[in-house]
Amino acid sequence: MATIVIALGGNAILQPGQAGTAAEQAENIRKTCVQIAGMIEAGHRVVVTHGNGPQVGNLLIQQEEASAVVPPMPMDVAGAMSQGMLGYWMQNQLDNLLRERGIVKPVVTLVTQVLVDRDDPAFKNPTKPVGPFYTEAKAQRYMAEKGWQMKEDAGRGWRRVVPSPNPKAIWEKEAIKTLVDAGAVVICSGGGGVPSFLEGEKLTGCEAVIDKDLAGQRLAADVGADLFCILTDVPKVCLRYKQPDQEMLSRVTLAQMHKYASEGHFKAGSMGPKVEAIMRFVEATGKWGVISSLDDATQAVEGNAGTVIVP
Amino acid sequence: MATIVIALGGNAILQPGQAGTAAEQAENIRKTCVQIAGMIEAGHRVVVTHGNGPQVGNLLIQQEEASAVVPPMPMDVAGAMSQGMLGYWMQNQLDNLLRERGIVKPVVTLVTQVLVDRDDPAFKNPTKPVGPFYTEAKAQRYMAEKGWQMKEDAGRGWRRVVPSPNPKAIWEKEAIKTLVDAGAVVICSGGGGVPSFLEGEKLTGCEAVIDKDLAGQRLAADVGADLFCILTDVPKVCLRYKQPDQEMLSRVTLAQMHKYASEGHFKAGSMGPKVEAIMRFVEATGKWGVISSLDDATQAVEGNAGTVIVP
Repeated sequence: MATIVIALGGNAILQPGQAGTAAEQAENIRKTCVQIAGMIEAGHRVVVTHGNGPQVGNLLIQQEEASAVVPPMPMDVAGAMSQGMLGYWMQNQLDNLLRERGIVKPVVTLVTQVLVDRDDPAFKNPTKPVGPFYTEAKAQRYMAEKGWQMKEDAGRGWRRVVPSPNPKAIWEKEAIKTLVDAGAVVICSGGGGVPSFLEGEKLTGCEAVIDKDLAGQRLAADVGADLFCILTDVPKVCLRYKQPDQEMLSRVTLAQMHKYASEGHFKAGSMGPKVEAIMRFVEATGKWGVISSLDDATQAVEGNAGTVIVP
Repeated sequence: MATIVIALGGNAILQPGQAGTAAEQAENIRKTCVQIAGMIEAGHRVVVTHGNGPQVGNLLIQQEEASAVVPPMPMDVAGAMSQGMLGYWMQNQLDNLLRERGIVKPVVTLVTQVLVDRDDPAFKNPTKPVGPFYTEAKAQRYMAEKGWQMKEDAGRGWRRVVPSPNPKAIWEKEAIKTLVDAGAVVICSGGGGVPSFLEGEKLTGCEAVIDKDLAGQRLAADVGADLFCILTDVPKVCLRYKQPDQEMLSRVTLAQMHKYASEGHFKAGSMGPKVEAIMRFVEATGKWGVISSLDDATQAVEGNAGTVIVP
């Protein structure tokens, strides 16, 4: 029996082209949870973390659209809301699927804060686009009025950019560990957790976004996981992705992967942080990690699918 | 050392006349948490539950205002979002106050579903007003289009009404108990929890609102609390409230309280469910309960303030 931390990508919850109704998202989550239920049925202990990009994007649009009547909430609060929403769907669907299989164990969501360093260079160079697209005029107004940093995004309009600092620690790790040790399935650190920094003894949330895979790595290390598994929409990590001589990786050592990464095979906004997160886990723990598609997940956690990264 | 379940009223979070910005609500919660930190410093184990009326009202307005661009979420999902938001503020503020006092223990929020009975008569007679006020024309349209039930509210406009079923069980009680036993401060069952019913083995959330004090009573019974404490905006429960011969109650037996309740001293929308919740707790457990103002809370949990109800 292994303790596995699973990081789910946004596509496990909201697929491109879908409007994002509650019914659509709950059904996508149900399908994802079928895979997770399979792992639990096979005897593994599972901790689940997930992205929240499309959901927090929608929340930010709602904050703005209703701002004449309801005070808009800042990003740390919107992140916590998305943890409640997505966690609710996940614990409900996974618990139902487990009971269908005759498995009764607590499935719970913990609202999670993640410690970041206020001196993280990311705070001086915000790069992560969030929320809706704006016209240049509106973007100029918000930059002046709200102090937002905004960037033009490939001809699609202007978007707010926020810092994406490095996760230092999962603030609620002790409680998560208590629950895992008691046999619970824990959903936590959703959307990378609420980024929070310490000033003296005071922890304060901030307007930033932690990469959910990097936060998942911290989570996996903090709960003493045997395996860190990132699920995405491709079956394996590729060298020369989408080029004629593309090569799928099945089993790679940490040293090889470092070499591939330094050669620029993995893009910053997509496979880059996933590979980086798995490499950090393997490096920190001496255990193994895997990146796979959702469909192959139950095979991947046995080492029989996806891209396995070993020490 | 006692295990205490504390139920916080909406006024502990958002005061009348306030717009409801994040800063206002976090500050109100900080003040409330000073009282709770005092109880923990005195050696008690604390589980916190809270209302979410104004917050979920604002979320419902946002769902509506942005509905042309973002699919509106139903009430069960809005409830879960409010648990994430309010839980985040509470765990952050309380944890900071505890560390200021040199106390290090996990403070966590669990997203909570609460079991209700699908045959609960409340589903045939929705009484709980939620969300914004509408014109009659818009109300008629929503009743036809969305199947909502709506009622005219004392000349202020039309409002949606939803069922307020009786809580049967806290679905996540085992995990809550695990955390409490491990010394954590747990925030849960926010807004009365997400009302959910079982069909076969399938648990499904529904559009309803469970009274947060009645859910708090179930929580207190389920975690084996020694004391159930409801904090509100008056120092004591009164007979003939706001009449010239008003009488404040300091210490009452369960039998006496039943008699006062049957005489109609406690109003349905305000003190009624609080008194009912404490009476249920005392009846079910043989332990005592207290209703007090927030300011008197640390005294009340020692039996030295508020209205104490004993077997």
